[in-house]
Amino acid sequence: MLTDLSVQHFLDALASGEPAPGGGSAAALAGAQGAALISMVCNLTVGRKKYAGVEAELLECRARADGLRAQLAGLIDRDTAAYELVMAAYKLPKETPDQAAARTEAIQSALRQATLTPLETLVACVDVLELSPVILAKGNPNAASDGAAGMLAAHAGMHAAALNVRVNLNAIEDAGFVSEMSTRMSSLLIRGEVARASAWQLAELAVGGR
Amino acid sequence: MLTDLSVQHFLDALASGEPAPGGGSAAALAGAQGAALISMVCNLTVGRKKYAGVEAELLECRARADGLRAQLAGLIDRDTAAYELVMAAYKLPKETPDQAAARTEAIQSALRQATLTPLETLVACVDVLELSPVILAKGNPNAASDGAAGMLAAHAGMHAAALNVRVNLNAIEDAGFVSEMSTRMSSLLIRGEVARASAWQLAELAVGGR
Repeated sequence: MLTDLSVQHFLDALASGEPAPGGGSAAALAGAQGAALISMVCNLTVGRKKYAGVEAELLECRARADGLRAQLAGLIDRDTAAYELVMAAYKLPKETPDQAAARTEAIQSALRQATLTPLETLVACVDVLELSPVILAKGNPNAASDGAAGMLAAHAGMHAAALNVRVNLNAIEDAGFVSEMSTRMSSLLIRGEVARASAWQLAELAVGGR
Repeated sequence: MLTDLSVQHFLDALASGEPAPGGGSAAALAGAQGAALISMVCNLTVGRKKYAGVEAELLECRARADGLRAQLAGLIDRDTAAYELVMAAYKLPKETPDQAAARTEAIQSALRQATLTPLETLVACVDVLELSPVILAKGNPNAASDGAAGMLAAHAGMHAAALNVRVNLNAIEDAGFVSEMSTRMSSLLIRGEVARASAWQLAELAVGGR
């Protein structure tokens, strides 16, 4: 499992000339980092008298961020696995017409899965982004730069995941699937950018400075 | 060392209520991921006949990205260490005037170090960003989404590092130091945004799609 590798070894695996892990797993890791930093801000807020008024909301936020961290950590491995299925399908024999047809079918099926996996990463990154204004508005302000760092990581993860969705859609023949995915992706990206803008404004206010 | 932790354990440490590791170490990891993905694109390009014309340039690019990955991986730990020094300084005794003066001096000195460390992360993230248009323009186009994911991670790392610089500058009394750091940071952020814009345009061209 990629998540069992040390951080150093994961970075080395990413840098290698193997086509996976690549941008899709990196997107999931960025999102997982974002979720972790949201949880961190919640953990630096809950249980303190000063923030008793937001305790319930931040406990709920932490539960969601913890769940998203687990989901996105799983997607680090699942994205690489989905990519490997595509590569395996391309290696199927195509000598007879039957083989060629089966290979095309296998490639198209693997590509759909390799699209749905980064789309799941994209959805989870948007969920992380939508938690970030909450913790920047209501969480411990001493951890604002940590919360903002989480938002930025999730934003990078969202766009990296979207590029991976698009690359796979380019090779998919089912126009209905392509159109449905493109539409879903566009509205997710808008939601993510709205959350980012709101979180960034709150981060600027919290960090302030000269 | 944080980089010896598994990816899963690093994420869990980030999520915990301990004030470190936090946004500063996450910024360095994002930058290191970016550098790793730049190296990946180089590794998927060099040694192939088709790309012989850009071989020398991409070997040079890979050497720089490999160096930046090592530097940024080191900064994951160094940022947390710098933060811990600040916390230790705040805990020094302040009962006598001499103690109070020594404590203030120690806090200010630790804060300067805790500013210079994310500034180094910021510089390295900008360096990664400035490599990204090169690999998107000249590297293997099949790895364009990986290169773009690297650019996005470095961009998130740059801004997260900048927020950490600003948070520390807020508490530093030496106006000359604050002014010098702010000026350096502004020009680095501009360089980073210019590189990002150029890389994003190239990524759009490479990924294209419907």
